[in-house]
Amino acid sequence: MKVDGVPRRSIWPAADGGAIEVIDQTRLPHAFEIRRLATCEDAGHAIATMVVRGAPLIGVTAAYGMAFAAAENASDAALEAAALRLKAARPTAVNLRWAVDRVLTRLRPLYERDRPSAAWQEAGRIAEEDVGFCAAIGAHGAAVIRKLAEAAGGAPLNILTHCNAGWLAAVDWGTALAPIYAAHDQGVALHVWVDETRPRNQGAALTAWELKSHGVPHTLIVDNAGGHLMQQGQVDMVIVGSDRTAANGDVCNKIGTYLKALAAHDNDIPFYAALPSSTIDWTLASGATIPIEDRSEDEVAWMSGRTADGRIERVRIAPEGVRAANPAFDVTPARLVTGIITERGVRPATRDGLRELFPDMAGG
Amino acid sequence: MKVDGVPRRSIWPAADGGAIEVIDQTRLPHAFEIRRLATCEDAGHAIATMVVRGAPLIGVTAAYGMAFAAAENASDAALEAAALRLKAARPTAVNLRWAVDRVLTRLRPLYERDRPSAAWQEAGRIAEEDVGFCAAIGAHGAAVIRKLAEAAGGAPLNILTHCNAGWLAAVDWGTALAPIYAAHDQGVALHVWVDETRPRNQGAALTAWELKSHGVPHTLIVDNAGGHLMQQGQVDMVIVGSDRTAANGDVCNKIGTYLKALAAHDNDIPFYAALPSSTIDWTLASGATIPIEDRSEDEVAWMSGRTADGRIERVRIAPEGVRAANPAFDVTPARLVTGIITERGVRPATRDGLRELFPDMAGG
Repeated sequence: MKVDGVPRRSIWPAADGGAIEVIDQTRLPHAFEIRRLATCEDAGHAIATMVVRGAPLIGVTAAYGMAFAAAENASDAALEAAALRLKAARPTAVNLRWAVDRVLTRLRPLYERDRPSAAWQEAGRIAEEDVGFCAAIGAHGAAVIRKLAEAAGGAPLNILTHCNAGWLAAVDWGTALAPIYAAHDQGVALHVWVDETRPRNQGAALTAWELKSHGVPHTLIVDNAGGHLMQQGQVDMVIVGSDRTAANGDVCNKIGTYLKALAAHDNDIPFYAALPSSTIDWTLASGATIPIEDRSEDEVAWMSGRTADGRIERVRIAPEGVRAANPAFDVTPARLVTGIITERGVRPATRDGLRELFPDMAGG
Repeated sequence: MKVDGVPRRSIWPAADGGAIEVIDQTRLPHAFEIRRLATCEDAGHAIATMVVRGAPLIGVTAAYGMAFAAAENASDAALEAAALRLKAARPTAVNLRWAVDRVLTRLRPLYERDRPSAAWQEAGRIAEEDVGFCAAIGAHGAAVIRKLAEAAGGAPLNILTHCNAGWLAAVDWGTALAPIYAAHDQGVALHVWVDETRPRNQGAALTAWELKSHGVPHTLIVDNAGGHLMQQGQVDMVIVGSDRTAANGDVCNKIGTYLKALAAHDNDIPFYAALPSSTIDWTLASGATIPIEDRSEDEVAWMSGRTADGRIERVRIAPEGVRAANPAFDVTPARLVTGIITERGVRPATRDGLRELFPDMAGG
């Protein structure tokens, strides 16, 4: 997608080779800064500190992290240790595990001397695949949007999204935002309600910034407002991403997604999750056992922004000494999900629906 | 309630007479500052800018505003004009209209010369009544809490609340927090989940501050987190206040309340609204026609806090140029409300439930 007219991805190989570059997502929307990652430790640190975030992107970053690890020490023991360290960077998104294991599986049968280049190629392949998957999600999702827009009879379709599942969360296009970009580019009149997404404000900081950069009409709202807008008939559809999806269609996504799913259900509004198959955890019969990351209470108590005279400041918004809890994800039960939009098409959020699309992955 | 050991109310007559003093709630929790209001314009301005907020408190402030108006010009025409101005300060809370009309009704039959002192007395009476009502809400609500605590078998009862309906929102005790203070003071083990309550953060800024000042165990969470905590069995009860309650039990309260009510319902968690009868709009058959205040988009895009070195700074958290929508309230349908806690007792959120408690007000 474009930033100031320049085509961008969220992650790319550095021009001089041997390193990757990423957009520092902790600095947006106030500053557009690029970070160079050249070691496995760099990659793990960028994931843990959310310089990169979003399930697909942390998968790709971790795959490059494995490539750096292979360049540092390609022995079985060193690679297994690097894999464990990378997987521990964040616990909820399954793409991290999936991407690391995929590189590891690719490397195990190879001589050590062949591993660094093979790992680098595999990481690049994962990145390219993700772009293709997200483009396909965009095409399948845009068809759903077009149908709803036709039923709405010409008025702009109002779509609500939570957190950021745009191109910044993937490599390009995004997951939840891919159908929105595709439909917009096809000329469908639409408007996006952007949930702020406390505590890290990925909606305000990243989704609003992405949509603005691409020229998609949108309005920022606090996370509390979506239910009211739905009651008032101002939301026609909800699309979110997913950090891990269980085999039964339960969708784990950014904290607060469940509340929007409840409100959509209560108001008969279609609620879709858009995700590449790499996000599906086929080993989980339901979402109940997905580990939910507890993050720092400072994320709740402090906030960054730009002062009227242009300085970036960090301010404490909670009273001194107040404790905070900060679970980062919740699980939306499949019963509240109208459909899952994947790279292979759209199906109901059920075991059978997912198995029909992915018989090669779903297992017995 | 006490602040640093000193008993405080949210509003009181100034020691020198002819004015009232209030705590500036836009400065909490970072600064405790008292403002003097001495004219009808002062009162209206304090309500509109949310120096005072909370349905009961804006009612009392408006009543004093009418007393100032009567001291300025006690003619029928001047008082009617002052009443219209005060009522226009904020549209959703019915207490504002109720309190202004009550003073007006008290003054109309009087000679102009008797009106200023009668208005002052009536405002004081409304304030004292509110304290009594809130104390009674506390007693009735504490009985509900005790029952749930007994069923929970000794573990601290986890109560979630949204926004601030504490003593700062009333004159003393509060509405939603009154049962919590009363039960805590009776020795019931409890813990409060405090919703941050974007965009104005009344939970983080006011409720957490109140609970800390009184010594009630509590934890701050973002508005997105409550649904997940309910799914995890970490919430035993929800209590909220109300800015206007329809005769059928539909509860209008701070934006986001509806989302918590949906989650409580989905997880079989009792959801109570605590409110004095002055908050009930007997003229409304349902909540559908309650006017919902739209507030400034700056409240969404900007935030105030204290820097690490102690300065209070205002920072923009949204990208430059992004538009925001900011509806301030939503309506929770009565079907999601387990019960209404009032000064006369607790009843189901139904027309019959409310009528049984208030046959003298409910009309035909």
